[in-house]
Amino acid sequence: MIGEDKLKKLIRKTDSKIVMVVMDGVGDVSDDKGLTPLAEAFTPNMDKLALESELGLTVPVDIGITPGSGPAHLSLFGYDPLEHEIGRGVLEALGIGINLSGRDLAARANFATRTPQGIISDRRAGRISTEENERLCKILNEKMPVLDGVSVKIYPGKEHRFVVIFTGDGLEGGLNDADPQEVGKPEKFTEPETPSAEKSSRIVNQFIKEVQKILKDELPANTCLVRGIGKSPDISSMGDLFGLKPLAIASYPMYKGLSKLVGMDVSEGLSNLEEQTIELKKKFNDYDFFYYHVKKTDSFGEDGNRPMKIKVIEEFDALIPDILALKPDVLCISADHSTPAVMKGHSWHPSPVLIHGSYMRTGQVKGFNEEECLKGSLGRFYAKDLMQLLLSHAGKLDKYGA
Amino acid sequence: MIGEDKLKKLIRKTDSKIVMVVMDGVGDVSDDKGLTPLAEAFTPNMDKLALESELGLTVPVDIGITPGSGPAHLSLFGYDPLEHEIGRGVLEALGIGINLSGRDLAARANFATRTPQGIISDRRAGRISTEENERLCKILNEKMPVLDGVSVKIYPGKEHRFVVIFTGDGLEGGLNDADPQEVGKPEKFTEPETPSAEKSSRIVNQFIKEVQKILKDELPANTCLVRGIGKSPDISSMGDLFGLKPLAIASYPMYKGLSKLVGMDVSEGLSNLEEQTIELKKKFNDYDFFYYHVKKTDSFGEDGNRPMKIKVIEEFDALIPDILALKPDVLCISADHSTPAVMKGHSWHPSPVLIHGSYMRTGQVKGFNEEECLKGSLGRFYAKDLMQLLLSHAGKLDKYGA
Repeated sequence: MIGEDKLKKLIRKTDSKIVMVVMDGVGDVSDDKGLTPLAEAFTPNMDKLALESELGLTVPVDIGITPGSGPAHLSLFGYDPLEHEIGRGVLEALGIGINLSGRDLAARANFATRTPQGIISDRRAGRISTEENERLCKILNEKMPVLDGVSVKIYPGKEHRFVVIFTGDGLEGGLNDADPQEVGKPEKFTEPETPSAEKSSRIVNQFIKEVQKILKDELPANTCLVRGIGKSPDISSMGDLFGLKPLAIASYPMYKGLSKLVGMDVSEGLSNLEEQTIELKKKFNDYDFFYYHVKKTDSFGEDGNRPMKIKVIEEFDALIPDILALKPDVLCISADHSTPAVMKGHSWHPSPVLIHGSYMRTGQVKGFNEEECLKGSLGRFYAKDLMQLLLSHAGKLDKYGA
Repeated sequence: MIGEDKLKKLIRKTDSKIVMVVMDGVGDVSDDKGLTPLAEAFTPNMDKLALESELGLTVPVDIGITPGSGPAHLSLFGYDPLEHEIGRGVLEALGIGINLSGRDLAARANFATRTPQGIISDRRAGRISTEENERLCKILNEKMPVLDGVSVKIYPGKEHRFVVIFTGDGLEGGLNDADPQEVGKPEKFTEPETPSAEKSSRIVNQFIKEVQKILKDELPANTCLVRGIGKSPDISSMGDLFGLKPLAIASYPMYKGLSKLVGMDVSEGLSNLEEQTIELKKKFNDYDFFYYHVKKTDSFGEDGNRPMKIKVIEEFDALIPDILALKPDVLCISADHSTPAVMKGHSWHPSPVLIHGSYMRTGQVKGFNEEECLKGSLGRFYAKDLMQLLLSHAGKLDKYGA
């Protein structure tokens, strides 16, 4: 990346349209036949497209580093993920569909059990039921006072987990977790890691004491641990930075939240790829950048379900003709990271990427998969640089220097 | 590299074991049949391993930059060689087995000849014999006074060369060479390049004058030139940085010294690959990272002896089954740099690397050599990023961000 200031000066506004498909976690490792799911899947449309496209591999964050979804997506959207960090609390809030403003501090929290002597005896309050969690969050929302001008809102999650949003002036990130990490240790309050986080730290600790007051008769859930406390990163919008008018076509809250973070409009009420494709068609004239998210390649990777991961790939492949029929100036098929089914989790392996535009340096590739991408003309590069490629392919970047 | 602070937060301590073999200078250039020594050597074990491994090429320091052994090894150990510089004096000291503390300033020096008018008439004192050198160093060690609280110890090298260690408080690096570079020029004293090096500079110059006093009747060796003056770099240990308990299994002093610099324990008394392999087996339960150094690929490269370089490669190949029998979680075969036999010296060409672990993206490679590595799934990357890959393959790195 040449840097925000340098890039902004090169931006040329045009009517050309970019569709960026993100097949979440589609990258994988070889099985004993040497095949990845993408290689094994029956994908006639992607394979045909590959012959007329540029292929490569993207490194999500850095060589050998396994990324979470937040940094992996920021990279694809053209932001340096090492510069813009997203806290756990913010991501959790995005994941349940909360919109965060610049006055919000987000944290994730557990209901927990505390002895009268202040020892944490259960970090999950005996894994209370989700219903019990919802009842307690309701009580807290009703009884929690405004804390030194800061209002507090609590959102129940599953079992013992909840999200808490503090809203007020002067709240900054940079504080550690209010969590002793181990059972049998004294409760821990949060401490600021930088002077600017002093108010946040004070408010969070006040909050914990209020929770203890309000829930004093609610054993085992008579306190809480608060973690991953932080603010939404202060990020230039994709409109400001790239001159784009972007729309996110995704079904899962976290990805919609990440899209809002970078200033995308977000389509609502979509629950599968067919609906997403119809939405793309419907909104195609209204935007010039479309983020189209395929979630389930990752979900089945996380489940260790290789056959279903393959099936989702094939399901998406069947929709490619519909996308191509819209004649986007640039179609990019990418992945935020790899989620090898045998690993049941994200990995560090680079992600396959395909760019289809008007000016292609095609090569000897035979289809779209990790092995063919290794031979592709794009080579291997950092995902944060992908947006520069897409903008150029779309004619949206002037040359640098004379 | 994502930076020390960010990386430290991701470290997960596990029992998994990493073996990093460094075939010193094994990389080479093609002969008229298009073969490198690694390609020509009979290496059935490495070639078989390559089929189930990830291959690539590492750039030791930067594209087109020929590295010395110090920076090339630091990179492999996960340190940025452009950030952590090792002075010539320090490397020379490590090379003769001197342990350096934070109070030590190291320099390499030449015995030289000085006219009564202070002109350097021979920068090598007529290349005096090593025996003569040893005699003079003995005299200097006996007669050298403590200089302003700084004690001085002199270690003879070959011919006119010696190493000098200054030990005291307030000695900092950042001073230039006390060497006029050319014969017939006036003697030169060292000057500080930063204010913090003023004491060092004063002491080194005092030392030179004392040498002149002590050796005034020892023509042609009646003075000395002092060069490459510096301290051991202040480097986080591999334990601190990566959570590893590392052991160096090397036979040459310089590599043992480099290993100590980064906080490795070092096996002593090993003189060949068989002994090194027995040591690996013996210590396998006590450590989780093993640096196994193959020196002679480099030595024969430096000698221009291609057939013997090939023979060393074959000798190491025969030991691979013994290493694999230990079932390391990750086996990496790497090189610090290339030492093409036709060049009789280090070169800038990237080094072949192989990683064998549990989650592999294998490819179309047919063996282990420079040409196959070019096709490997790891692509070409900076050697300083290798450690991130090895830690991830060993399950020792958490994901970055949520």
